[in-house]
Amino acid sequence: MSVVDKTAAGQDNARPRGGESWALCLEAAVTVARQAGVVIREAIKDEKQVMLKSSVVDLVTETDQKVEKFIINSLKQQFPTHSFIGEESVANGQGCSLTDNPTWIIDPVDGTTNFVHGFPFVAVSIGLAVNKKVEVGVVYSCVADKMYTAQKGHGAFCNGHPLKVSKVTELSHSLLLTEMGSMRESESVAIRMENIQNLVCSPCHGIRQLGSAALNLCSVAAGEADAYFEFGIHCWDMAAGALLIEEAGGVIVDTTGGPFDLMSQKIIAANCPAMATSIADTLKEVPVGRDGIQT
Amino acid sequence: MSVVDKTAAGQDNARPRGGESWALCLEAAVTVARQAGVVIREAIKDEKQVMLKSSVVDLVTETDQKVEKFIINSLKQQFPTHSFIGEESVANGQGCSLTDNPTWIIDPVDGTTNFVHGFPFVAVSIGLAVNKKVEVGVVYSCVADKMYTAQKGHGAFCNGHPLKVSKVTELSHSLLLTEMGSMRESESVAIRMENIQNLVCSPCHGIRQLGSAALNLCSVAAGEADAYFEFGIHCWDMAAGALLIEEAGGVIVDTTGGPFDLMSQKIIAANCPAMATSIADTLKEVPVGRDGIQT
Repeated sequence: MSVVDKTAAGQDNARPRGGESWALCLEAAVTVARQAGVVIREAIKDEKQVMLKSSVVDLVTETDQKVEKFIINSLKQQFPTHSFIGEESVANGQGCSLTDNPTWIIDPVDGTTNFVHGFPFVAVSIGLAVNKKVEVGVVYSCVADKMYTAQKGHGAFCNGHPLKVSKVTELSHSLLLTEMGSMRESESVAIRMENIQNLVCSPCHGIRQLGSAALNLCSVAAGEADAYFEFGIHCWDMAAGALLIEEAGGVIVDTTGGPFDLMSQKIIAANCPAMATSIADTLKEVPVGRDGIQT
Repeated sequence: MSVVDKTAAGQDNARPRGGESWALCLEAAVTVARQAGVVIREAIKDEKQVMLKSSVVDLVTETDQKVEKFIINSLKQQFPTHSFIGEESVANGQGCSLTDNPTWIIDPVDGTTNFVHGFPFVAVSIGLAVNKKVEVGVVYSCVADKMYTAQKGHGAFCNGHPLKVSKVTELSHSLLLTEMGSMRESESVAIRMENIQNLVCSPCHGIRQLGSAALNLCSVAAGEADAYFEFGIHCWDMAAGALLIEEAGGVIVDTTGGPFDLMSQKIIAANCPAMATSIADTLKEVPVGRDGIQT
């Protein structure tokens, strides 16, 4: 248990003191993710007004925007000195700067396209980075009512049950997850397809696509699939899920096999280093941008 | 309600009389699918002994074989004059002949690769064809505990709630489902990849792969996705799900856009004819075989 003084919430010292756990923040993230999930679970049944962002298949709805505001307002009240990076705030022109200050990194509706269609793989993803390292990660799978939680050094859980990655070590025996994403430039799509084809023909057992980066990461953490890779995703898609992977015994690396960088827009999350290396050795790099500015 | 004389079960006249419904068969399929599902749901947690069939990624386990025997024995007791086509029986050299006789078409574990990995999209699929037309379809999603049911002319349901396909009519606004399957010949894989790439770049909103043909069909029937297409699947993958699509207001056609043929190893299942046509117009044919012999 954290020994943070709860009466100090809303004050500068609401931030857990050095050496203490971030359990209070985990608790707050779980509470707000569950509340957000109720809104999403109800809204997924309705007709949606869909707006476009970076491309004609990069969708956003009022629910994304409303839920993000709710999450940020709720956490700001409890942790007024913390910083915030939210998918929809960034889309609306706010900064995406990851500093050493405790920073909540939020995807209010991970799997917006699924949400728009009623495809039931939609999650709230909330990570808290401190000194640019994720200390707390919460992914709430709204329709399945599964709460995935992790705190650095304290393990990963789904609805309170410990998560453990799979034991498969060979790519030829693996089940992999990836996504086509919302980029539609022909060069980018062609490299993605080449990557999938090369992995399929390695061969691997199969490729699955759920349409939610956060839930793909949860699947690997839960040992249901052996690895997940993607190009063109953002820090809010990966922050919480990346910690879940590590706390479930897996590894997170860059698509080149080098160290993972939360702002790099690419990831390999695997059950073990050998699997991560096999995938990195097979992948051709898809050109992607970079989230924000690291200071 | 069916007026079939239940006391006649196990006799020749257990077959519902002409003009009567096949409700008794639906009831029997639901019961046996649920029993089979309990076995699968338990077994998915265990270590599995995996055997290979047509390729190094075409997997089968003792559970597939055991569950199929259980389903067939159970239905044979109730309907001794009926015929049976089961995935594992066919793999073991038994015939795959669809005649006019009432024929149960069974996939004991649809999504065997998922089952092997513990990826929780695994279904029991049971269809009953009469005069080569599917009259009854049951798909039980074992882990999610969702029972999808359809009887020709009586609608499609999930856990008793009516299913309805989506309203999206344009490919550019669609969410599509497909699979890479277990074929790994380079020509076959290349055409599949080309098909996916062409659809992604149409553009469509996205492509999803759950790893279970039956559950992909259920997703379209439930309006969660707009269409599903696949080459290289079998009658036991599609029989029940195809009826669910039609009873939920959707359409089933061949990948060329022509009439659907249950034994043709290919399918487009869509929410509406326009969507099916758009997909058929985009697809290049993948060479596939043919199930059994139609007499």
